[in-house]
Amino acid sequence: MILARVMGNIWSTRKEESLRGLKFLVVQPVKINYSESGDKTLEDYGNTIIAADKIGAGETEIVMITSGSSARQSLQDNSTPIDAIIVGIVDKQTFEL
Amino acid sequence: MILARVMGNIWSTRKEESLRGLKFLVVQPVKINYSESGDKTLEDYGNTIIAADKIGAGETEIVMITSGSSARQSLQDNSTPIDAIIVGIVDKQTFEL
Amino acid sequence: MILARVMGNIWSTRKEESLRGLKFLVVQPVKINYSESGDKTLEDYGNTIIAADKIGAGETEIVMITSGSSARQSLQDNSTPIDAIIVGIVDKQTFEL
Amino acid sequence: MILARVMGNIWSTRKEESLRGLKFLVVQPVKINYSESGDKTLEDYGNTIIAADKIGAGETEIVMITSGSSARQSLQDNSTPIDAIIVGIVDKQTFEL
Amino acid sequence: MILARVMGNIWSTRKEESLRGLKFLVVQPVKINYSESGDKTLEDYGNTIIAADKIGAGETEIVMITSGSSARQSLQDNSTPIDAIIVGIVDKQTFEL
Repeated sequence: MILARVMGNIWSTRKEESLRGLKFLVVQPVKINYSESGDKTLEDYGNTIIAADKIGAGETEIVMITSGSSARQSLQDNSTPIDAIIVGIVDKQTFEL
Repeated sequence: MILARVMGNIWSTRKEESLRGLKFLVVQPVKINYSESGDKTLEDYGNTIIAADKIGAGETEIVMITSGSSARQSLQDNSTPIDAIIVGIVDKQTFEL
Repeated sequence: MILARVMGNIWSTRKEESLRGLKFLVVQPVKINYSESGDKTLEDYGNTIIAADKIGAGETEIVMITSGSSARQSLQDNSTPIDAIIVGIVDKQTFEL
Repeated sequence: MILARVMGNIWSTRKEESLRGLKFLVVQPVKINYSESGDKTLEDYGNTIIAADKIGAGETEIVMITSGSSARQSLQDNSTPIDAIIVGIVDKQTFEL
Repeated sequence: MILARVMGNIWSTRKEESLRGLKFLVVQPVKINYSESGDKTLEDYGNTIIAADKIGAGETEIVMITSGSSARQSLQDNSTPIDAIIVGIVDKQTFEL
């Protein structure tokens, strides 16, 4: 899985029939940088990902993204054509200690 | 999923028998850049992708691309050897607000 | 799918039993660059790929490559351990207009 | 598989129901550089990965990461939506000789 | 498939039970560069890969690597959690002509 920051919503009226009812979010991949003193900071990298969301993640939250065929395993219909999904919202304490 | 801009058509006379009847488009990946004031702009990145299209996307439209094994899940024959498909056309309002 | 230029053959005497009888080609990924006037030029990028070929592509031809699990769907034995295959030869007119 | 260094834990309270009970670790990809005299050194590259761990890897250990659909094959429920797992802890002697 | 050079062995005592008995090698991806006169040279790129080996490849040999779910198709138990395997040893003549 990778980490990403939720940036906002995306709208698509004309889409695959099987995607109706799924919520999609724009997310920006982020990495953790460790300073020598052990501090952690988040840094953006890479390119925009559109991820399905069943958990209810909100803007600015840091989430875990699962990609590839694994992304559709938790959908009721696991043949839905998606390749990225939010599988968890990272607790703030992860980056604060 | 990633975002991409539809650039045009591609023609292939000699191809896998199972690809006959499918429409293929040349697309250019794009990312969303957010300014500090909240403005959104689109920027090209990466390399040309050839994606199957069942939705009828047109040149210059921004689309959502699903990659990998998920790309063939929505085809009638899900063993068709494709690894990228257009699953949605992004509404213009997504980038205008 | 991505685009690639056929560079030549590769020989492998000691290989997986299930690969016998398959033809493999060395291909170089290429992208399409669009000039403001609408001209298209091809540019190399990335690294050498070895792709199975059932279509009979020849040196210097531009081909469409399908990657990942989708690559083995069109083989009689879809558990053959390949992850890249040529699925189409791109018509020259695609780049000439 | 790739090599990675275990950096620490990650906490996620709100997550996919099927991920409960799985342990997740933050890992940093590393590569092996070979000097002309045959010495091996490890160098960080790329971006943070979150990997499931069933083996009990500890901070600073070098581990082997399996990605993609293969990552969920060793889970009791192989439809769990994960795309990276620690499959082995590399013995120190690998880098010391 | 990609090309890679065999660099050496890797040892892992604590690992997934299903990986026991499999041999793993450290490999370095290589690409083919073509000079204008048609000469071919090999150049390293990218990062260390750990690949399963059933063929008996030796150090310095150039091999073909299959990645992703295709990597586990040739194992007796195709749910073994590996994502890279050596499927062929490239004949030296490939690079000498």
